[in-house]
Amino acid sequence: VSGAEVRPLRFSGDALELLDQTLLPGEERWIRCAGATEVAEAIRRLAVRGAPAIGLAAAYGAALSARDGGLEDGCRALVEARPTAINLRWAVERVRAAAVEGGPGAALAMARRIESQQVEADRRLGEHGATLFGEAERVLTHCNTGALATGGSGTALGVIRTAHARGGVSEVLVDETRPLLQGARLTAFELDRLGIPYRVVPDSSAGALMARGLVDRVIVGADRIAANGDVANKIGTYTLAVLAERHALPFVVAAPLSTIDPASPSGEAIPIEQRDGSEVTTVAGTEVAPRGATALNPAFDVTPATLVTALVTEAGVLRPPYPRSIADVLAR
Amino acid sequence: VSGAEVRPLRFSGDALELLDQTLLPGEERWIRCAGATEVAEAIRRLAVRGAPAIGLAAAYGAALSARDGGLEDGCRALVEARPTAINLRWAVERVRAAAVEGGPGAALAMARRIESQQVEADRRLGEHGATLFGEAERVLTHCNTGALATGGSGTALGVIRTAHARGGVSEVLVDETRPLLQGARLTAFELDRLGIPYRVVPDSSAGALMARGLVDRVIVGADRIAANGDVANKIGTYTLAVLAERHALPFVVAAPLSTIDPASPSGEAIPIEQRDGSEVTTVAGTEVAPRGATALNPAFDVTPATLVTALVTEAGVLRPPYPRSIADVLAR
Repeated sequence: VSGAEVRPLRFSGDALELLDQTLLPGEERWIRCAGATEVAEAIRRLAVRGAPAIGLAAAYGAALSARDGGLEDGCRALVEARPTAINLRWAVERVRAAAVEGGPGAALAMARRIESQQVEADRRLGEHGATLFGEAERVLTHCNTGALATGGSGTALGVIRTAHARGGVSEVLVDETRPLLQGARLTAFELDRLGIPYRVVPDSSAGALMARGLVDRVIVGADRIAANGDVANKIGTYTLAVLAERHALPFVVAAPLSTIDPASPSGEAIPIEQRDGSEVTTVAGTEVAPRGATALNPAFDVTPATLVTALVTEAGVLRPPYPRSIADVLAR
Repeated sequence: VSGAEVRPLRFSGDALELLDQTLLPGEERWIRCAGATEVAEAIRRLAVRGAPAIGLAAAYGAALSARDGGLEDGCRALVEARPTAINLRWAVERVRAAAVEGGPGAALAMARRIESQQVEADRRLGEHGATLFGEAERVLTHCNTGALATGGSGTALGVIRTAHARGGVSEVLVDETRPLLQGARLTAFELDRLGIPYRVVPDSSAGALMARGLVDRVIVGADRIAANGDVANKIGTYTLAVLAERHALPFVVAAPLSTIDPASPSGEAIPIEQRDGSEVTTVAGTEVAPRGATALNPAFDVTPATLVTALVTEAGVLRPPYPRSIADVLAR
């Protein structure tokens, strides 16, 4: 881990500071959130994103609301900021329970604990995931699942990082990940700093790259995993899974256990956030579609468990049948 | 056909004028090409694009080169402007042969004939394709295959237009088509003018839209079709074909016979243009990836004939086995 380590957030003692990811890689600007309302707003507008990082930010936001005497309202605003990532609710509930039990000090301590647990979970997850790799693989990934997405070393990108350090990765093909370009903007930014070879590719090229034999493995993160192993993740993930199956490539999902939602029996139970169409019709501040054009903009899709080769968690690599392997790992 | 008909080019008597498609939909600017060199350059930088429209532009470019006394050099520059679309070579060779036979006047007459044949081919193609549609289908399309791409009423979009006029289409889902956004920019522009309901969607959402039951049919154009029915078309087409097969949706290709290349036995023989990575790392004039990031930018992919449900041409709807149906239609 170099001195150039990227972090999505830092707690300053009386406020949560977030690296505004909407401005990366062009500008590194930190924004200050003095209370839960500001944190919720930052989550909603994607200044911080990535399921685990959203959870961390919301944990600190909940701790701020405990300090400010608006715990219930603050927690509600945070949980409602985005609907799909389950880590958000999971983190807020833990901090809320700590606050109810032990007051603001206990709430902040819990937020800090969630952060250090996340860092440790990422480290272990990277270790477990790296065991899947052969030699010098060319890996395709989607969206951003690195330090910016988790506050640790990352989920899928953390696995890539560990595997690369051991010779298991020769190149990362980075889906640009429309509409918000988290791949081209954020994953490229992180890989650049880490010195891992990569090329950005249009999302639509994945099939052609596989057909030309340029991809050995697909690895992605998750925003919520159902009890049966269905995976909700950034829009485009399902398409990659279908293509990987056709080309007999391993399709790996890497996520901390906090991403698993035992209350969602299958992907059908997972709410999919629909975001504003202007994210599609406007690119980098420029309107590209005709004035008045409407767009569909589902932020996530659901990949059925049958397409998932392996599920990497901090507790080890889970394999099908997922209903059993997931139940087992959660019961430990 | 309304008065708002869009045209990609017009021959002014002593020059070819092209509607600069790189500026649409924001600006409608016509550029003047006084000779074959300017036409080749306009084709290379995508001021005119779409396999049939490239063919038309090149036909007029070749006629200009015949007038200017540089027939061979002009034709070579035009044919080399882009490698994948076969219509380009086909059109240039016809005009060149006419020039050799009958001089500049015959060359220009041939270019005009190719244009009127294209308009008529599109009309017939639309009629044949429309017969495939049921009632009020929701159709997914990729890239731009309308008037801007052909100079007539379009290939896939021409079919959609005819089918819509007969109640066969209720909505068009328009893949934005990265990297150059021909869907969001050009197809949306044409559908807007035609008054056909549409929504722009990120390319990566196609799988999710199909899984949610929002798509009844996929229809696309082609840049070159091999003798066995393999289809080279805009990057992302192959992915759509794989997804359509998984969801048991018809995957239809619409293209004039001039797009079929009997000299390419299969897709493997078709040269795939690799364009500059900056088209991916820069969006609408803004650099989105980190400075120095490299990108892979294959402009086309190949869809195997086995994934193509039907091939719509001006001579009728071809069905598998394509080696036979294609040979039959070309022998007529």
